[in-house]
Amino acid sequence: MIYLDNSATTKQYDEVTEAMLQFMKQDFGNPSALYQLGIDAEKAIKRARGQVLDAAGLAGDRDVVFTSGGTEADNMAIFGAADSLKRLGNRIVTTAVEHPAVLECCNRLEKQGFEIIKVGVDRQCRADIEQLENAINERTVLVTMMHVNNEVGTVMPVDRVREIMKRNGAPGLFHCDAVQSFGKMPLPKDADLISISGHKIHGPKGSGALIISKGRTAAGKNINIPAYIVGGGQESGRRSGTENVPAIIGLGTAAEKGQKEGPFFPVLRDRLCEGLKNSIEDIEINTPMDESCPSVLSVSFRGTRGEVLLHTLEQDGIFVSTGSACSSNKKGQSHVLTAMGLKDREIEGTLRFSLGRFNTEEDIDTAIEKTAEAVKRFRRLGSFR
Amino acid sequence: MIYLDNSATTKQYDEVTEAMLQFMKQDFGNPSALYQLGIDAEKAIKRARGQVLDAAGLAGDRDVVFTSGGTEADNMAIFGAADSLKRLGNRIVTTAVEHPAVLECCNRLEKQGFEIIKVGVDRQCRADIEQLENAINERTVLVTMMHVNNEVGTVMPVDRVREIMKRNGAPGLFHCDAVQSFGKMPLPKDADLISISGHKIHGPKGSGALIISKGRTAAGKNINIPAYIVGGGQESGRRSGTENVPAIIGLGTAAEKGQKEGPFFPVLRDRLCEGLKNSIEDIEINTPMDESCPSVLSVSFRGTRGEVLLHTLEQDGIFVSTGSACSSNKKGQSHVLTAMGLKDREIEGTLRFSLGRFNTEEDIDTAIEKTAEAVKRFRRLGSFR
Repeated sequence: MIYLDNSATTKQYDEVTEAMLQFMKQDFGNPSALYQLGIDAEKAIKRARGQVLDAAGLAGDRDVVFTSGGTEADNMAIFGAADSLKRLGNRIVTTAVEHPAVLECCNRLEKQGFEIIKVGVDRQCRADIEQLENAINERTVLVTMMHVNNEVGTVMPVDRVREIMKRNGAPGLFHCDAVQSFGKMPLPKDADLISISGHKIHGPKGSGALIISKGRTAAGKNINIPAYIVGGGQESGRRSGTENVPAIIGLGTAAEKGQKEGPFFPVLRDRLCEGLKNSIEDIEINTPMDESCPSVLSVSFRGTRGEVLLHTLEQDGIFVSTGSACSSNKKGQSHVLTAMGLKDREIEGTLRFSLGRFNTEEDIDTAIEKTAEAVKRFRRLGSFR
Repeated sequence: MIYLDNSATTKQYDEVTEAMLQFMKQDFGNPSALYQLGIDAEKAIKRARGQVLDAAGLAGDRDVVFTSGGTEADNMAIFGAADSLKRLGNRIVTTAVEHPAVLECCNRLEKQGFEIIKVGVDRQCRADIEQLENAINERTVLVTMMHVNNEVGTVMPVDRVREIMKRNGAPGLFHCDAVQSFGKMPLPKDADLISISGHKIHGPKGSGALIISKGRTAAGKNINIPAYIVGGGQESGRRSGTENVPAIIGLGTAAEKGQKEGPFFPVLRDRLCEGLKNSIEDIEINTPMDESCPSVLSVSFRGTRGEVLLHTLEQDGIFVSTGSACSSNKKGQSHVLTAMGLKDREIEGTLRFSLGRFNTEEDIDTAIEKTAEAVKRFRRLGSFR
């Protein structure tokens, strides 16, 4: 199997599985229990918090609130910030190319009276800085911007947000959905709220966290994100429900192992990009190679249908996607590629290749060869295979 | 190890672990992916839905929305029902002895203008039916009542709720937190919304579901619980976030295995209860033996401190709790035992023994012997061990 859909999900590291097994089989205690079996679980959770912060390249003046994944972390951050700061204004600034986990929260808040401003992007998904400057104002209670786009890989201008917020007198918080960048590149240090996920970095599904800065808002108040899931008061009252200890330990283990392996290097993706360009005519690279996370490559093969290519490649044991996983089996076109201004026929012929730690040069070379065959065949025969 | 804290969490069945490993190691695809690796995961999820309904003893005219656990399911049910039906009234009826996952939702809704009525209980945690009758009225949009109390084991009058709602003209929904009863006894068939959890039945932590009836409300409308976590639209739009496939498979496997083993039999608990009564003086059984789930036994050992007994028993390799796990390491007394009218000194000397599928007669006999020793020692020496 040549798995090139690592932005959708990844295969767990064996070390992650082993670490989880310990907490499934032996140390299965409830971390809230008073006896040693519970205390051991709680200690292990504490260790995982450190592993996550270390891997994120963030200092210790942050809280790590473990969640069931990136989506829950996004919901907690956005609904929490909006609720917490609604007295200071009603504007939320985001981009047109966020993950649905962010956009759907914004849509819901819009119905509640918030004004949502979605900054546009260019042909390679780079955000329009002028729009961003104009959008952020003194009523802005939240800027929520992804670090790396999940469909194209483009790094968004997260390093500019805080400066613009300050200049324009925005009293709000800065939330960064770093699900695609965590474990692959250093995270933005000046975000108040950062969402991460485990299963994108060879950690377990059902794991994630919201990293909350212990700093203050522009208005001088302590950052206070209310719990989104309430109950028994776990996670210092910030996320209730019995802690998913194996998942948390798995996330910590994956974070630590990824950190040891270092940042994600562009070698394989460059090889893939060059190989596809050299062997297939009339293609468009949608990913800005110099301004992106080197795990993602989005390519439009003109005159083809991505879904057919995907299934042709599947027969060769190669797994790719047409867009993000969560939207790929729904009707309608990618909102990201649409926002980038791709034409319908370009969107239709788009594939996303996304790399993980297990991919090899041989994987890439086979993928190039088989993709070239699939594209040529489609262009010759159409979708009638 | 003699583990008698199964209401806090349980050790996974080995079959559960094995089933999960398959989806961690081989079939790790994202269920939303278009290729076979994703489709296989989606099929497995569908199968787990059936396993859950079968184990619950519920017919197929229900949706199973997988969540990260019982607490999330409670949050989804209560906030969702309140939001969905707020035009019909503002009263929510519950009991004084619900799990914090329910009570904290109610507390939050109270701040938003809902009127929360908490029905009281007697000395053995049986709800006051007259209070319940008087509480449910034509403005009641939600009745949320647990099936089995987690600290005492008492079965609550869930079979009366629907009849009273009908008689009193309540337009709302009936939510039942069945976290403690699922997999141990048949669930109430006429609840619109039922929360369950995996890790209380030897399934994985981080697994649970909200079971939603496809029926209609008293007002004749389709039951419509909005998503609580929004995003990519997984679970038919009702719960977003990449599905935690291994946890879902683990929950299904545990449900099926539990069902094969049959309902929870009272033999071991009866043995424990009789043994404690026969060997220790001046104790009070807080659990109504004939009206409870036979997995829980709450006992007050007068003139002792439960926390000290707990640690004494821990040294003998016996694990019990002083109350529910999620509240046991917080200050303050159990709200359940307080609502039951126990005196402070009774509350202080209370232990909860909770049984699981792995317990044996030998476990019980040893627990009786060691508990008797611990109680006698405490009464002789006080807490200075």
